Amino acid sequence: MIIELKSKINPEVKKSIVAKVAALGYKSMEVNTQRSQYLVAIGKKEFDIRTIGHMAGIADIHQVSDEYKLVSKKWKVAPTVIDLGDGVTIGGNGLSIMAGPCSIENEKQIEQTIQHLVSNNVRIMRGGVFKPRSSPYAFRGLGIDGLKLWYELARKNGIKIISEVMQVSQIEPMLPYVDVFQVGARNTQNFNLLDELGKVDKPVMIKRGISGTIDELLSSAEYVFSAGNEKLILCERGIRTYEKASRNTMDINAIPILKAKSHLPVVADPSHGIGIREFVPPVALAAAVAGADGIIYETHQKPEEAFSDGQQTLDFDESSRLIEKLRAAHKLMAN
Amino acid sequence: MIIELKSKINPEVKKSIVAKVAALGYKSMEVNTQRSQYLVAIGKKEFDIRTIGHMAGIADIHQVSDEYKLVSKKWKVAPTVIDLGDGVTIGGNGLSIMAGPCSIENEKQIEQTIQHLVSNNVRIMRGGVFKPRSSPYAFRGLGIDGLKLWYELARKNGIKIISEVMQVSQIEPMLPYVDVFQVGARNTQNFNLLDELGKVDKPVMIKRGISGTIDELLSSAEYVFSAGNEKLILCERGIRTYEKASRNTMDINAIPILKAKSHLPVVADPSHGIGIREFVPPVALAAAVAGADGIIYETHQKPEEAFSDGQQTLDFDESSRLIEKLRAAHKLMAN
Amino acid sequence: MIIELKSKINPEVKKSIVAKVAALGYKSMEVNTQRSQYLVAIGKKEFDIRTIGHMAGIADIHQVSDEYKLVSKKWKVAPTVIDLGDGVTIGGNGLSIMAGPCSIENEKQIEQTIQHLVSNNVRIMRGGVFKPRSSPYAFRGLGIDGLKLWYELARKNGIKIISEVMQVSQIEPMLPYVDVFQVGARNTQNFNLLDELGKVDKPVMIKRGISGTIDELLSSAEYVFSAGNEKLILCERGIRTYEKASRNTMDINAIPILKAKSHLPVVADPSHGIGIREFVPPVALAAAVAGADGIIYETHQKPEEAFSDGQQTLDFDESSRLIEKLRAAHKLMAN
Amino acid sequence: MIIELKSKINPEVKKSIVAKVAALGYKSMEVNTQRSQYLVAIGKKEFDIRTIGHMAGIADIHQVSDEYKLVSKKWKVAPTVIDLGDGVTIGGNGLSIMAGPCSIENEKQIEQTIQHLVSNNVRIMRGGVFKPRSSPYAFRGLGIDGLKLWYELARKNGIKIISEVMQVSQIEPMLPYVDVFQVGARNTQNFNLLDELGKVDKPVMIKRGISGTIDELLSSAEYVFSAGNEKLILCERGIRTYEKASRNTMDINAIPILKAKSHLPVVADPSHGIGIREFVPPVALAAAVAGADGIIYETHQKPEEAFSDGQQTLDFDESSRLIEKLRAAHKLMAN
Repeated sequence: MIIELKSKINPEVKKSIVAKVAALGYKSMEVNTQRSQYLVAIGKKEFDIRTIGHMAGIADIHQVSDEYKLVSKKWKVAPTVIDLGDGVTIGGNGLSIMAGPCSIENEKQIEQTIQHLVSNNVRIMRGGVFKPRSSPYAFRGLGIDGLKLWYELARKNGIKIISEVMQVSQIEPMLPYVDVFQVGARNTQNFNLLDELGKVDKPVMIKRGISGTIDELLSSAEYVFSAGNEKLILCERGIRTYEKASRNTMDINAIPILKAKSHLPVVADPSHGIGIREFVPPVALAAAVAGADGIIYETHQKPEEAFSDGQQTLDFDESSRLIEKLRAAHKLMAN
Repeated sequence: MIIELKSKINPEVKKSIVAKVAALGYKSMEVNTQRSQYLVAIGKKEFDIRTIGHMAGIADIHQVSDEYKLVSKKWKVAPTVIDLGDGVTIGGNGLSIMAGPCSIENEKQIEQTIQHLVSNNVRIMRGGVFKPRSSPYAFRGLGIDGLKLWYELARKNGIKIISEVMQVSQIEPMLPYVDVFQVGARNTQNFNLLDELGKVDKPVMIKRGISGTIDELLSSAEYVFSAGNEKLILCERGIRTYEKASRNTMDINAIPILKAKSHLPVVADPSHGIGIREFVPPVALAAAVAGADGIIYETHQKPEEAFSDGQQTLDFDESSRLIEKLRAAHKLMAN
Repeated sequence: MIIELKSKINPEVKKSIVAKVAALGYKSMEVNTQRSQYLVAIGKKEFDIRTIGHMAGIADIHQVSDEYKLVSKKWKVAPTVIDLGDGVTIGGNGLSIMAGPCSIENEKQIEQTIQHLVSNNVRIMRGGVFKPRSSPYAFRGLGIDGLKLWYELARKNGIKIISEVMQVSQIEPMLPYVDVFQVGARNTQNFNLLDELGKVDKPVMIKRGISGTIDELLSSAEYVFSAGNEKLILCERGIRTYEKASRNTMDINAIPILKAKSHLPVVADPSHGIGIREFVPPVALAAAVAGADGIIYETHQKPEEAFSDGQQTLDFDESSRLIEKLRAAHKLMAN
Repeated sequence: MIIELKSKINPEVKKSIVAKVAALGYKSMEVNTQRSQYLVAIGKKEFDIRTIGHMAGIADIHQVSDEYKLVSKKWKVAPTVIDLGDGVTIGGNGLSIMAGPCSIENEKQIEQTIQHLVSNNVRIMRGGVFKPRSSPYAFRGLGIDGLKLWYELARKNGIKIISEVMQVSQIEPMLPYVDVFQVGARNTQNFNLLDELGKVDKPVMIKRGISGTIDELLSSAEYVFSAGNEKLILCERGIRTYEKASRNTMDINAIPILKAKSHLPVVADPSHGIGIREFVPPVALAAAVAGADGIIYETHQKPEEAFSDGQQTLDFDESSRLIEKLRAAHKLMAN
């Protein structure tokens, strides 16, 4: 059960609501986000919500049977729109395109990518400065200095930044330089990281775990929301299956299912979803017509020279053609 | 290696080719289809194909490194088009729509469905008369009499029939009444059935196994082709994964991958691919923009009263809307 | 619900029971096996079984909530023992060992294998004469002549034969020469084959599907039982997962789970379960201590020269050591 | 390639080795652990190791083709034995039993468990004080105070402690009170955590990821080793598959495969591997005979009252019987 509290609620009144909820056999957790105050009440008993509905300080009450509560569409039907400023948004009616290299490599690469994005009117650039690598001997990214350089060049060109945060200690140094924190597939259930991201006022995009379920992704988002940050984006990036003809199996089903279960925007990552360069465009288009609010993919001036993920990275010509088709497909579906 | 033989090859000449191939350390298998004669030569040694290329009776020679040979795109780049007659085709540039109930139930249901298809200019109707059911106590279909009734009504209305054949003994009785034999997901590796379907001159659509790989699907098609029938269609219908929010996981990746590996047409089945009625349309559209040559889905006058699969079956209004969107999406992508 | 009928029930009495059951809103199916007569009644209503319990001709009534009925342990707690004659049984307290090559190749190979089995006091030999192969160009087995030769040599030495049947048309020719029909993993849901095997009076061992669930395996056994043959054995042989370090993932959990759900004997196939020769013995031992009633594995005089599956086949020395350890482990667990 | 350096190597000599390795086209990483000094050299060129083999300061050189190097059996054939002091070891010839509750709950529970372990001569107790929970509203553990209390009671009774560390900030406070750090299945690829655990001198047991591959588990161990800590234990705990009859699918194959690939001890967790109380003992026994060096499982005075995981937790009687059988099975296999 979600109890939305009035914005200027008197602390004494709040206390009495908590006490009443406890008396009804529910445990409640107070959640304060950028937008509102909530009590999330967890319990199994059923009771007549009119018992508390009349109490002062309560704006609204919603019964949510899902295990996740605050991210559920059952209490908030209107889609959440994430505003990155300067007219850049994710969610709602548009299709957000986010593109860029797997790894941020150097100034020249950043400049070339920004130029490519600007010329295609794309406003959000992706790129990793901290890279999770399964082998300890692989390239681990340029780190915070790379991010600062990127930030400087991006800001000059009106480009927003999405980049992966791998651990709690990186949140603070990254905070001034990113517009969206990305939680990677290996960290979807890094609950401490999620808790800490709940304390900052920056959007967070959570990727589905390598073999995470749809419900686990929603519960991970619930972690961040319940810790205080409701600027959340969900990302489908393919799951691990027995099929080895592709890197992962893009779960196209997850897109309409997530949209039906949650009010949060849903982004698709076809680069990791299939992992083979020539097939990234059809999978990207499929995700767009299936209802994704955004597409995030890898592009590089020279994919064959990329530090990582070159085999699934589009060159700029392929990227430009994809952008055009994505917009046409989105427009068609919107009608 | 595939050796295409000339159409009017002298038997003595053929013998000498087989002997030469054997002398080179290859086992060869003679394949006679509706369209051509081939020798499929299997072996590991490499040799200069010029050794045999000059021989009389040989039209062309293709080296194919895939385990499947005749269905590979490596020797036949042009897409295969299946002609069902009366201007109905599958493959090539169009998008074939095939719709109908899970099970054929009775005359009224057939008539209603045909009327729905005709009014939407859809030319192929799907429906099961032999139903594979995991429980022996479930409805197993109307059988051959149901098929005959269906055939009669369909022919009057210019509708083609695709229906599942479950065992060898059903091939002969079904033959006059179907336009496409469908091999179901539980029979993808029923090699005896595949062998026998290789002996008839009717198109066969093979569904991917419940957890079959892309390569296994191609090898199953190779069975039919090498037994003499090259009128083949591949069908992606979702695979079994750990995710239980949907009935199966539609492998959208398989569509561009199959198109790249094989010259055969690729059809997508979103009804089984996601298994949830309200999400069938977005998945169908995704498959169409990902490159499918056809979409096969379940529709019924009253899905809630269907004998089987009602939970994933569209009503006629939903079906009509989907058809319109599918055609618009296909047109957009073709440009 | 399973209604066991008395052995010499009067047909009129039976009719009246069927009528009564129908009146209660249940569909019933009559099942006649080698051992007994049953009515399997399927329906959703609950009623007091005393309503029919007093009727003449009824030996016993069992309520079984599982989707599978006759193979469930809910009505038959005592384990089923399959008697192959000459003191050879599967199920009950012993551990049945079944070994032999993947494919029957020639007389010498059969003789060597039989000699190996006899010297280790193993009474059941496995081997394929019809081989399901994913490629149409691979070796497909010696066929019925190979089986006859094998039968002749086996009978002289008191060895029982288990061999795979791939299609309905093979049942009759194989019938005189096999002691157990094996249904392979690709045919677990070949329902026509299961139906027909229900009509013969020979034991049938059903392998779990390549990615079949435990419940699907039980439902497949229900097919055979409900068609009249209750001499059934279940076989765990590994499932398909994302892990590629082994050929399949042996589902060791399935062994105690199947034993708890069904009264049928459970056999484990470690050769396919892991697919790597050196690791077959530890997996075989694991299955034995987990509760398997039998172990079936591949052994060959010279695995490196086997026509098929050599990479997972033990040589005779390895096989002899494994047999000894299996018996010691089984003895330990039985105490 | 792994270059073992002599223990008292002169820094100048080391420098010259690094330079020589670089000149040969290899990148090298210096690894200093509790036991030795290594250079791990990564590169693709092949060269004659005699080129550097004669250099002063080098104790030995091993070519390791696996992606993981230091944890590979290719350079260290002898099994690693982890010594917890007071005669308690993991690895080598014995079978280590580790048991205890899912969550540490209170003093009484700790005392009862210790008493149970002592009376069965079990020396290692498991238990969680920081609990990873997929829902933010679930019990998250007693934290560091719970650990201190546990430590006090355990030390009095000669019991060693293994407990899960969830994040970098917990390492330091936990350090004095645990004998083995456990990395949970959701953190197997939390590379920052692995890096930090490489800097402490305490054994670390790494659980396989929820759907982690065997090679990923080994690469995660390589992270810790290459950061300086070679006191490592691998743990198989079941993987996520399509089969839902059990909580996870215990990958019994992984045990002999890990033992063959790595010199590290391998522990099995049957509680999570199957997740159903009554089937934990057979799966535990299976793991022991398949070659596990240890078994870790959940036990509780009253499983039905446990704060978490009660459905897979043995009571003390079941636990005692299992311990006895495990030891008998291990003894049998050792002969």
